[in-house]
Amino acid sequence: MTALPDDDGPVRFTAEDYAARMRRAAESAAGAGLDGLLIAPGPDLVWLTGYRPVETERLTLLVLRAGQDPVLVVPTLEAPDAAAAVGAPALTLRDWTDGQDPYQAAGSLLDSTGRYGISDNAWALHLLGLRDRLPDSGHIALTRALPMLRAVKDAAELDRLAAAGAAADATYEEIRKVSFGGRREREVAADLAGLLRQFGHEQVDFTIVASGPNGANPHHEAGERVIERGDMVVLDFGGLKHGYGSDTSRTVHVGEPTDEERRVHELVHAAQEAGCRAVRPGAACQDVDRAARAVIADAGYGEYFIHRTGHGIGVTTHEPPYMIEGEEQPLVPGMCFSVEPGIYLPGRFGVRIEDIVTVTDDGGRRLNTTARELALVD
Amino acid sequence: MTALPDDDGPVRFTAEDYAARMRRAAESAAGAGLDGLLIAPGPDLVWLTGYRPVETERLTLLVLRAGQDPVLVVPTLEAPDAAAAVGAPALTLRDWTDGQDPYQAAGSLLDSTGRYGISDNAWALHLLGLRDRLPDSGHIALTRALPMLRAVKDAAELDRLAAAGAAADATYEEIRKVSFGGRREREVAADLAGLLRQFGHEQVDFTIVASGPNGANPHHEAGERVIERGDMVVLDFGGLKHGYGSDTSRTVHVGEPTDEERRVHELVHAAQEAGCRAVRPGAACQDVDRAARAVIADAGYGEYFIHRTGHGIGVTTHEPPYMIEGEEQPLVPGMCFSVEPGIYLPGRFGVRIEDIVTVTDDGGRRLNTTARELALVD
Repeated sequence: MTALPDDDGPVRFTAEDYAARMRRAAESAAGAGLDGLLIAPGPDLVWLTGYRPVETERLTLLVLRAGQDPVLVVPTLEAPDAAAAVGAPALTLRDWTDGQDPYQAAGSLLDSTGRYGISDNAWALHLLGLRDRLPDSGHIALTRALPMLRAVKDAAELDRLAAAGAAADATYEEIRKVSFGGRREREVAADLAGLLRQFGHEQVDFTIVASGPNGANPHHEAGERVIERGDMVVLDFGGLKHGYGSDTSRTVHVGEPTDEERRVHELVHAAQEAGCRAVRPGAACQDVDRAARAVIADAGYGEYFIHRTGHGIGVTTHEPPYMIEGEEQPLVPGMCFSVEPGIYLPGRFGVRIEDIVTVTDDGGRRLNTTARELALVD
Repeated sequence: MTALPDDDGPVRFTAEDYAARMRRAAESAAGAGLDGLLIAPGPDLVWLTGYRPVETERLTLLVLRAGQDPVLVVPTLEAPDAAAAVGAPALTLRDWTDGQDPYQAAGSLLDSTGRYGISDNAWALHLLGLRDRLPDSGHIALTRALPMLRAVKDAAELDRLAAAGAAADATYEEIRKVSFGGRREREVAADLAGLLRQFGHEQVDFTIVASGPNGANPHHEAGERVIERGDMVVLDFGGLKHGYGSDTSRTVHVGEPTDEERRVHELVHAAQEAGCRAVRPGAACQDVDRAARAVIADAGYGEYFIHRTGHGIGVTTHEPPYMIEGEEQPLVPGMCFSVEPGIYLPGRFGVRIEDIVTVTDDGGRRLNTTARELALVD
């Protein structure tokens, strides 16, 4: 289990903060024509209540309906933990015991022909259990119904995201001092994880160290490959600090790079600058993707930029809004997301540069500020 | 990311092992009247293919149909990792790229009026995406359709479960030597986690240290409470070693116990013995629960045993079969599950004793063998 984000965070969320979030969510649902929201353990529940159980085969479900008090259906076993959550004073707990039917307990709170938004990560087991109980009810994934529910961060949330970003930046400054050549990727990845924890992360979500040809696989984690002199190495790492996410990428080189390596790196750097410059209120998410992609495509590398340009970040390290072609959602001050173009040359190397950016009243502000030029490491 | 279970395990599963599991699963589905199985990242996918991605908003889905080759729908980004999985030679990969509709890619493999079993932990986002694409298709949770798919372990799996159990037992032997009194629960929990890793666990799932009144909450993890002389302390810990689970509980006492503490502990000990003695081929799962529960109920403590007696274990630490009233599934040699009765006295203390037991040809064999008597610690 991870440490609770509220233990010693810079700002402690209160029961009233959570109550306000729950009211806002229920009202947003009603505004979208839904009868309510069904919230599973995971980021939605943490954000709405501060309660952080693990999703299991035992049903835990927060039921939010406009104008009615929130109800948390919870296994009896876990009721004491739920009652201790910071948001619990704003909740009614309804517990069920092994052997009882939890879908009956939850279903009794729902309209038999109602239409509900349900957390993206709710288990199929539970959704199907609810459907069996109320076959005429309907469900829509929460990020389809209310994609922007958690997207606009308030000042306290921005403080936490900035603190997480600063910790990731400190990690990058330190990792540049370690030896790369002759060590395995997973050894450098362990260094990254240790540094993230040292700088206050309670949870490390990913520590990508993708050297040489492994860098051409954007989601390569870190393996047994021994890093060699002459390698490009993509570093992409992050996790949660005080409950809020960090995620930054830099690409370093062991020893002197070739002209082509320098050129590709400069191209990604320029694309990342263009993406960040496109961030301003009222621009569409896809505009950020287009701005970054155009730089790479114009230079003839378009086919090697094989992923979207960015994703939102908050109590998770991957959430809406997505910076992707077709996403017309306008940017709003307080949104936070990654800008992370890359070029991946199969069998050879990859380059990615990533910052978290928040939308301000007149543009964007980066929460990662370490140097983006190609760093040479040992 | 955790280390891959195949890295240096006692038995290395082969592509043919995974192919056989996939064939068996597809045939079982057909036998249950299903058109196929839809397998999400998580334990089902690990067991069937050796591939261990994280479930995210990007769809990864293994489609199994009787008489047809397995197809893995995978994000282009992650296709290289999927192709490197041990089970990959038995799979056809069908990748989709950011901006494409993954549910179209998956839906094109499915019968528009078909009925499919889907992994319990598949995300609602993905199930609803498939439903939107094929509204006349139907779905049933995998553990409802085929609860016993992963329940009967083969010899290689039993070896891994035994090795995980031995590592947990070694952890218990060592933890009895540390100081309890005067230290915080979370410090002892950190010791447990370190020991599990030292004895070869690549993943620690839980390290419960529930002292004094916290012991009365069966799912209390470990907190800031300082353990005192005179406390009962429930220890319940486990995780994955070489990809297979451990899970054992012992209750220790700091200094001399009272007569009542001794009596309650002896009662739980007797209940756990009775549960284990009830394990034999052909007995029903609920018989194990009844045997353990009867001992506690007969002594007048029935209302304080507030959970089922056990759960299956394999590539997860919680899975079918469940030892619970109403579960009539007969026990079959090779099944592995916990036997873990407990008594929880609100505001005072709790006791739980737990072993993993496997069904043999003529009874049951425990995979945890440390002393179950009340141990006194410092």
